[in-house]
Amino acid sequence: MTGPHPAVAATRVAVRPALTEAGPGSRVLVGCSGGADSLALAAAIAFEAPRLGVVAGAVVVDHQLQPGSAEVAAAAAGQCRALGLEPVEVVSVQVTGGGSGPEAEARRARYAALEQAADRLGAAQVLLGHTRDDQAEQVLLGLVRGSGARSLAGMPARRGRLVRPFLALDRATTRAACDAQGLNPWEDPHNADETYLRVRARRLLGELEAALGPGVAAALARSADLLRQDADALDELARTARGGLGEGPWEVADLTALPRAVRTRVWRSLATEAGSPPGALFAVHVDALEALLTDWHGQGPVDLPGAVRARRFDGRVTLEPSRRVE
Amino acid sequence: MTGPHPAVAATRVAVRPALTEAGPGSRVLVGCSGGADSLALAAAIAFEAPRLGVVAGAVVVDHQLQPGSAEVAAAAAGQCRALGLEPVEVVSVQVTGGGSGPEAEARRARYAALEQAADRLGAAQVLLGHTRDDQAEQVLLGLVRGSGARSLAGMPARRGRLVRPFLALDRATTRAACDAQGLNPWEDPHNADETYLRVRARRLLGELEAALGPGVAAALARSADLLRQDADALDELARTARGGLGEGPWEVADLTALPRAVRTRVWRSLATEAGSPPGALFAVHVDALEALLTDWHGQGPVDLPGAVRARRFDGRVTLEPSRRVE
Repeated sequence: MTGPHPAVAATRVAVRPALTEAGPGSRVLVGCSGGADSLALAAAIAFEAPRLGVVAGAVVVDHQLQPGSAEVAAAAAGQCRALGLEPVEVVSVQVTGGGSGPEAEARRARYAALEQAADRLGAAQVLLGHTRDDQAEQVLLGLVRGSGARSLAGMPARRGRLVRPFLALDRATTRAACDAQGLNPWEDPHNADETYLRVRARRLLGELEAALGPGVAAALARSADLLRQDADALDELARTARGGLGEGPWEVADLTALPRAVRTRVWRSLATEAGSPPGALFAVHVDALEALLTDWHGQGPVDLPGAVRARRFDGRVTLEPSRRVE
Repeated sequence: MTGPHPAVAATRVAVRPALTEAGPGSRVLVGCSGGADSLALAAAIAFEAPRLGVVAGAVVVDHQLQPGSAEVAAAAAGQCRALGLEPVEVVSVQVTGGGSGPEAEARRARYAALEQAADRLGAAQVLLGHTRDDQAEQVLLGLVRGSGARSLAGMPARRGRLVRPFLALDRATTRAACDAQGLNPWEDPHNADETYLRVRARRLLGELEAALGPGVAAALARSADLLRQDADALDELARTARGGLGEGPWEVADLTALPRAVRTRVWRSLATEAGSPPGALFAVHVDALEALLTDWHGQGPVDLPGAVRARRFDGRVTLEPSRRVE
């Protein structure tokens, strides 16, 4: 008697820890797009969940961004049902034109829909099919944003109810698993459309592998793991340091005593607490705040996004909403 | 009266802080290869140093790796002398075939020769011409090694006597500065030889810029700055944590109480102290040590490079040189 195809076995092994943690009698949901990654995930969960006493359903999000998206969603849902997942829901979302671009808006809408479905169906976990290749692309994009460890840290294997059991598998494995199980993954035409940043990142990753040797995606994913641990540790230190500072104004000496990596994070907290939108705070703002300590020559106040103003006087620093002229 | 060409002005502005710090009466040395970056640096230093009371010389390292390298070195030295630097020395080094590859060996030999020249000539600083593009290439190579923040952190603007005043300038500026001053930079034929990893990284960086938009090199350099601050803070925390642990054996509870990013660095210290060569410690070793805490099921000892053995017993962990069988 032969076992399953090695790729199928790999996907099944990969989902067991999450299902074991969910525990008998719990319910989990697969977020399925119909693509190879999430279809392979649906198949692995459909196989393993009953063996571990877990009830597994699926949610297919229809972004309504392409003609025929309803049919694609229905086909994905059909394959999930055929695999034995129950319930399988199709949720349509409306992607509004937000300020952060269509890819970010679609992602936000998708996660919101998945969280709502989990609430409605009482699911302990929402399982997502992101692979090591997705992680590597994410790191590459974070790197060229130049925005530090958190943005380089990629996607966590777990955040709240969201679980990504395939982060250690590559995309070739999920495709092979679909093939071996007779599944028909949907090929998103957007994946060939180079107007999308992520698609360009995918091509570049292939060129990096070709130029620098195989294993680049694995190395990028490994970098992401290490940087995530670093970012977690420093964020925690910054939280503690912020707590220790108490209410403003803050003594220059207290701020200067912090390691710079911790202090830049504390600056972000202080600015956010005073009303700056986190997404609008850039390195140039943090640099200007730093200059109040490290390059003090009596300069004027630092204006931050969200009408927040930082100033230094008498050896102390404040960050406060700036008064508007009536 | 017109001022200097903007590129020339940019290189001069860039070197002033280092020369000001060196101070009147001190001596500095430019490490010059004859390439555009270090030739532009030599010219900027030759212009600014006398104005700030600093005596500036140059050292040209002849790696003897290519036919005609002595002529290249002599030509670079001649240009440095014509700029007014004094003394200008050519130092020949022998690059031995070490285990870390020809590029790493050449770099090691170069830095050793520069440090020796600085000792001999009583120089307060050795100035190097690395640009933001070099930094970006370095980060890209670190990223695909997957070895964490320190390796992603790129080259520091200052380490000991080594100073890199051009890390915020791009390569185009140093070339333009050479052109504007009638300097003839040497074009290293190795820079077109794709057997060199760094040359491939340079080409890939160009492709990243083309695909993801301009500013990728600047973003990579910015990432490096932030990650260097993170790595500095975490290394310092790890040193403190290591000190707090004292002599082994170490209580599992004490190790477990550390944030993971700090603990992985402490593991590296403990292994190095016990005799593991730092360069031979890979992620797989640290993972095995972690498993003694986070996945303990009575497993056997962990063998590390350099004949070091880690084991857990009675709620404590030791790392010691393993006894050899006589």
